Amino acid sequence: MPGKRLSELAALVGGTVRGEGSATITGAAPLGEAGPGDVSFAAGKKHAGLISKTRAAAVVVRDAGGAPDGLNLILVENPEIAFARILGVLRPQTLPAPGVHPGAEVHPGAKLGAGVSVQAFAVVEDGASVGDRTVLFPGAYVGRGAEIGPDCVIYPGVAIREGCRIGARVIIHCNSVIGSDGFGYARDRAKYIKMPQAGIVRIGDDVEIGACVTIDRATMGETVVGRGTKIDNLVQIAHNVKVGEDTVLVAQAAIAGSARVGSRVQVGGQSGVNGHISIGDDVGIGARSGVAQDVPPRSIYTGYPAIPHADWLRAQNVYSKLPELKKKIAELEKRIAELEADKAEKE
Amino acid sequence: MPGKRLSELAALVGGTVRGEGSATITGAAPLGEAGPGDVSFAAGKKHAGLISKTRAAAVVVRDAGGAPDGLNLILVENPEIAFARILGVLRPQTLPAPGVHPGAEVHPGAKLGAGVSVQAFAVVEDGASVGDRTVLFPGAYVGRGAEIGPDCVIYPGVAIREGCRIGARVIIHCNSVIGSDGFGYARDRAKYIKMPQAGIVRIGDDVEIGACVTIDRATMGETVVGRGTKIDNLVQIAHNVKVGEDTVLVAQAAIAGSARVGSRVQVGGQSGVNGHISIGDDVGIGARSGVAQDVPPRSIYTGYPAIPHADWLRAQNVYSKLPELKKKIAELEKRIAELEADKAEKE
Amino acid sequence: MPGKRLSELAALVGGTVRGEGSATITGAAPLGEAGPGDVSFAAGKKHAGLISKTRAAAVVVRDAGGAPDGLNLILVENPEIAFARILGVLRPQTLPAPGVHPGAEVHPGAKLGAGVSVQAFAVVEDGASVGDRTVLFPGAYVGRGAEIGPDCVIYPGVAIREGCRIGARVIIHCNSVIGSDGFGYARDRAKYIKMPQAGIVRIGDDVEIGACVTIDRATMGETVVGRGTKIDNLVQIAHNVKVGEDTVLVAQAAIAGSARVGSRVQVGGQSGVNGHISIGDDVGIGARSGVAQDVPPRSIYTGYPAIPHADWLRAQNVYSKLPELKKKIAELEKRIAELEADKAEKE
Repeated sequence: MPGKRLSELAALVGGTVRGEGSATITGAAPLGEAGPGDVSFAAGKKHAGLISKTRAAAVVVRDAGGAPDGLNLILVENPEIAFARILGVLRPQTLPAPGVHPGAEVHPGAKLGAGVSVQAFAVVEDGASVGDRTVLFPGAYVGRGAEIGPDCVIYPGVAIREGCRIGARVIIHCNSVIGSDGFGYARDRAKYIKMPQAGIVRIGDDVEIGACVTIDRATMGETVVGRGTKIDNLVQIAHNVKVGEDTVLVAQAAIAGSARVGSRVQVGGQSGVNGHISIGDDVGIGARSGVAQDVPPRSIYTGYPAIPHADWLRAQNVYSKLPELKKKIAELEKRIAELEADKAEKE
Repeated sequence: MPGKRLSELAALVGGTVRGEGSATITGAAPLGEAGPGDVSFAAGKKHAGLISKTRAAAVVVRDAGGAPDGLNLILVENPEIAFARILGVLRPQTLPAPGVHPGAEVHPGAKLGAGVSVQAFAVVEDGASVGDRTVLFPGAYVGRGAEIGPDCVIYPGVAIREGCRIGARVIIHCNSVIGSDGFGYARDRAKYIKMPQAGIVRIGDDVEIGACVTIDRATMGETVVGRGTKIDNLVQIAHNVKVGEDTVLVAQAAIAGSARVGSRVQVGGQSGVNGHISIGDDVGIGARSGVAQDVPPRSIYTGYPAIPHADWLRAQNVYSKLPELKKKIAELEKRIAELEADKAEKE
Repeated sequence: MPGKRLSELAALVGGTVRGEGSATITGAAPLGEAGPGDVSFAAGKKHAGLISKTRAAAVVVRDAGGAPDGLNLILVENPEIAFARILGVLRPQTLPAPGVHPGAEVHPGAKLGAGVSVQAFAVVEDGASVGDRTVLFPGAYVGRGAEIGPDCVIYPGVAIREGCRIGARVIIHCNSVIGSDGFGYARDRAKYIKMPQAGIVRIGDDVEIGACVTIDRATMGETVVGRGTKIDNLVQIAHNVKVGEDTVLVAQAAIAGSARVGSRVQVGGQSGVNGHISIGDDVGIGARSGVAQDVPPRSIYTGYPAIPHADWLRAQNVYSKLPELKKKIAELEKRIAELEADKAEKE
């Protein structure tokens, strides 16, 4: 790992050095694990206690408060973003070089942009196009007429089915599937007749999609994931779903068919959203929740069926005391019976 | 998209035209989004309000009731099935042409039927057989001695392990895994000794399996998915499970080892079924439910542990009012204490 | 299937024969399904009733109690382990032969041990190393500088990303992903800035990983899965998680970022563990549970949020009777009102 001077890193993120700008930084580590040569970062209460004891060579912080006197600092507005940039420089990812590997299969009717990398056993079908500098790792599959924007990274085993549209700077991790058929059938008494799934999936710019994610194509029209949205591993997005911008779907979440999820929404891990409902903008859905009805903007819902988070906390609080409550009721009943007996006696 | 006359489409589905049979249909869209040239369909209350306002060129319906006078109609017994067929004609899927791609790897000891398509980087191992007209997309894997029936579509990245049996007209979407080892171990104090998983998976005719689905091979004997069953994305089926016919497993559902799921069952999304239990025929399991015990035929169960749906609705209804209930109990207790105090005073 | 003499099988597992040691065993089957020629095993109450009626040629048991007089037995300390070994001999798995397939892509800078098998369309990138006798099935991917130990089996479509470390005798089933980027972002108001994920995944010896499992690389440092741990299909392990030894994660479980799971822990299917919490050694987590806080060693937790299992059972028991409880409270209220009315009348 090549070293960088602290002053160089500070300049990179528009920060100012407190301490020794000439210090050499060779690595990066969390505050509690950092050693000599490592840069780290501190933000929020979680780090407040750790910074006084860190062995890091330098720490990226918003202000010097709490940092011991001898500790080198980079002072910057948003330490987490600055650290992300520094980490990218100290530990750069090596992507495959441009060029089409002789073991790849690119159809003559496909269009490849400048500087594209197509690795061994990747397939680009007829009529598909791949934007400038995009990387297709080994075994990636791009179906007929699919379009991928520039500067994307498509990891091994990803399948992008025919006709789907992927924006710019999109990252798709290994073995995810974009554009599988939606789960739609017509009923013929007990039998299911397949409804053709003739639509596509459209993925906006700057979306990141985890590993083994499945996003189904629309029956007609488009399944949409908006710009900047981040999708964790093993998430399911059904046909005709519309997901807004800068939304986060945590691992194993599932959005059922034709649901709408707004922008700047956070859907917790292992949560589910019913089909044909609508979640407003700026909503938070707790982990392991099941959303059965529309959720208004700027609200937090939890539980199954999901209810406003505060209500859920209250109900949950009583839930664990149900056995006591039951006992209490039995006791009250006894006391009432005594009062009634007493009354009967006197009459 | 080549156009079709409305009368042609009506003939295709055995329907009758009301209106202009010579109208040209070039596309298909949902009732609320359809424009000139589009055919749509209406069935059920959901569509009743939309049909009066649709801009579609024609609508497939069961009867003319509710449809405005000028609107072209195809009248047919089951509009949804008719529409599925029409959509398949208007937007036909282009499958790869028959033939073995020079970049595919087919073992000399494998048998390929007539009109089979084996695309680049697909693998067919020794002793495996692939039925007539079946398509293996790029990167599909067929293990030793596996048998695939005719007219199947095996999408990119699907792995069918050794010895498994796939019926006719089966569709398996990208990156699904058929025949991975069951999760079985013998305990040697704290350590786990692998139990060989020597059985297979048998998939019936007309089954459709979504993307990133995992179906484990039996320890001994067979894991079975019956004819006509439809499996959504990211579903888990453990070793030795038997699933009946025309059953539906929605996304992220999981069936644990040796469980039996009947025919015409619907298992909701993100639900789980315990190992070694039995779900009867014609059962519905609500979304996000956990079935811990046998479920009798023709019943609907929900919740975790799953109970009859009506009971669950009643319990769930009280659940959200638990804090009020607790308050009420405290209030009653106070009133009893007052009565008791009064009684004590008088004695 | 070649036959074995019962006495040979008994010798293999260090057991003793009761009955006809020269009997020929040609297959293996569960007690209830076994027929002539089959060996089976019996352990625990589940099998006690079946052994009297079995048609098996021989049964592996701990003691002869309950077995009918004419039935051949192998007597052995741990029948399940003995049966696992016997099954492996009767139904051996045929792995691909050693050698590098001409259709594989091994970088000249990669190191392959003795007896390694690299099948068609598998990729081993620069600087990666593969241990002696390890098998890479078709389409397996080993990233730059990744290290795989000896005697591993890496099934079709598995992706092991750059720099990850896999121990000895590790089995990874189809389409699993080791070392995908962790789900980490810095917030810039509503937007998410990708935090580089510069760490790796380290998998210990004798780990088995199911199909479509995702294990994310650490942001910095390592995501760790300890020796002997067994992971079922579709499990999610987030960045920086540490899982101990001989732990079991059942299908569709998810461990969120930076959580610690101890040794000899069992996490039930579809359960989730929150980020940054710690589960002690020898813990059991019930199926479909959501663990929101630290769990002490040697305890059993269930529910969401997970509570001690006994408490959960009690609360769950009341839960299903909530409607009755509510009715009871209404009835008590009425009786109190009558007592109060009576008191008021008398005053």
